[in-house]
Amino acid sequence: MWNHEPPSRADLLAARDRLLGVAHATPVLTCATLDRMAGARLFFKCENLQRVGAFKFRGAFNALAATPEEERGQGVVTHSSGNHAQALALAARLFGVPATIVMPRDAPAVKIDAVRGYGAEVVFCEPTPAAREAAAAEAVTRTGGMLVHPFDDARVIAGQSTVAQELLGEVAVTGPLEFLLTPIGGGGLTSGTALAAHHFFEGARVIACEPAQVDDACRSFASGRLEHNERADTLADGLRTSLSPLTFGIVRTHVHDIRTVSEEEIVAAMRLVWERMKIVIEPSAAVTVAVALRGLGPGNPRVGVILSGGNVDLDHLPWLQGKER
Amino acid sequence: MWNHEPPSRADLLAARDRLLGVAHATPVLTCATLDRMAGARLFFKCENLQRVGAFKFRGAFNALAATPEEERGQGVVTHSSGNHAQALALAARLFGVPATIVMPRDAPAVKIDAVRGYGAEVVFCEPTPAAREAAAAEAVTRTGGMLVHPFDDARVIAGQSTVAQELLGEVAVTGPLEFLLTPIGGGGLTSGTALAAHHFFEGARVIACEPAQVDDACRSFASGRLEHNERADTLADGLRTSLSPLTFGIVRTHVHDIRTVSEEEIVAAMRLVWERMKIVIEPSAAVTVAVALRGLGPGNPRVGVILSGGNVDLDHLPWLQGKER
Repeated sequence: MWNHEPPSRADLLAARDRLLGVAHATPVLTCATLDRMAGARLFFKCENLQRVGAFKFRGAFNALAATPEEERGQGVVTHSSGNHAQALALAARLFGVPATIVMPRDAPAVKIDAVRGYGAEVVFCEPTPAAREAAAAEAVTRTGGMLVHPFDDARVIAGQSTVAQELLGEVAVTGPLEFLLTPIGGGGLTSGTALAAHHFFEGARVIACEPAQVDDACRSFASGRLEHNERADTLADGLRTSLSPLTFGIVRTHVHDIRTVSEEEIVAAMRLVWERMKIVIEPSAAVTVAVALRGLGPGNPRVGVILSGGNVDLDHLPWLQGKER
Repeated sequence: MWNHEPPSRADLLAARDRLLGVAHATPVLTCATLDRMAGARLFFKCENLQRVGAFKFRGAFNALAATPEEERGQGVVTHSSGNHAQALALAARLFGVPATIVMPRDAPAVKIDAVRGYGAEVVFCEPTPAAREAAAAEAVTRTGGMLVHPFDDARVIAGQSTVAQELLGEVAVTGPLEFLLTPIGGGGLTSGTALAAHHFFEGARVIACEPAQVDDACRSFASGRLEHNERADTLADGLRTSLSPLTFGIVRTHVHDIRTVSEEEIVAAMRLVWERMKIVIEPSAAVTVAVALRGLGPGNPRVGVILSGGNVDLDHLPWLQGKER
């Protein structure tokens, strides 16, 4: 299938064209306090301010926009309980086609409501990988819809690449970036970021940032083989998935390094951003900040930091765990 | 004293010149969900992203910048336990002069630390208006410093006017604003906003927004006499103070209306902004949002909404009151 090859330079540029005026060109913020703490000049790309509250909108919309009308006319299907579900639901609505989202039976009500709020049909399944893939396949057969995988899809990766395209382009006015920090889960955002840096800004070294609890990407990068997570107990719920062959291939070739951080570092970084930058980010987005705070070497380097999303349950904040009833 | 007359048109413009490149020209955000809920097109001026996390930096800096060096050389003094304290401490540091901040003995440690973090000397007093004024007068005598009142000062009001100058100028590209919502406590921001609207954008009607628990401005506006608050039990701690003769005079002349909202509306509006806009605002900043959500009349009007600050104790969020131990 054509969408299981890495997207080309032209694919990345085409994604940017398609998203112009549709996705928000999110702001790039700076913070003197965090710069001092990190010993670096940090440029925060605020995808928490993106539509649906996360970068995922870019990939979902591009997957639909890059597909001929006759192939997408029956709608789209995916399995996700996270930001991709809302992103695909909104993208489908914008194209006027139905969306069917497979979600685990135990997904939080607030997420189910959000997906339904965009007009999508929700199909429930047991909370296992096998059950959700079976349910998605069944939905494809039933509806004739097109499966849009959260990351194992060249169109999705091309869409996610627009985050780095915008960031690198915007800060280039004042000089190149030496590092570009991106969170890594399934590898869609990381792949897009690494390809954007490769094609358009070769000087920027991409560092993928991962919770130590789910360090499949870090282990895969070291061993050269696709490793999997045995556990999923990280607060960074967007980063629990493992790489796919497609994203692993891109990561091996174009990512400079993968670094892991502890849960405590994630919570501290998340709180610091809320407190000092006055913006809401989710745990998965704080992983890049935590890596930045560990330091990136001497010379006060210029560093792009992708803040991937801001969808948080405000009734359960990690620094209040154990303090709530 | 010259700084007890309303600032002139020239004073407002001079403040804008002084703050260029010193204060952040904060972004103006929009949110389709809140627009739908309010039946209006809302333009949020994000002073929560200002230096020290609130608009107060503008007035404090302008008070110093507008004063001849021989008068400010001995430093500055104020009494405040809120955002003005940090704002004046930072402004004094930027001018290289000492700052003495009178704070009540029971002020939160985090606020005391923040003020000291900017290099200011903290003097404690009993938590009564009489005690803090006496302590401030004593500090003026001892240090020879200049008193910079949080709002009863034309230089401060001129500084605060730059929020509306920026907002009105930025959105003018797409059309005029019909309403401009500002929170009201002592009336410094409201006075600056109303004067900016009067001098530069006459069509914009300024509506001051106040917690019902501390509705002195609303009552003063109705009675034509300066009324005072008997109570202070609002979460919007920046809005507990009453108007001064200077700010009341400006408010009477240039403000279109004053509206009050309940504590429940403030908490709901605050949470909604965090959840949907992914930015951190404090309760005092949510008062304008709560008024917008009540609706401003037919025709989907264009409304400027000033978000005044984002300094919040992340360990004690109002919607978790009673849920924490």
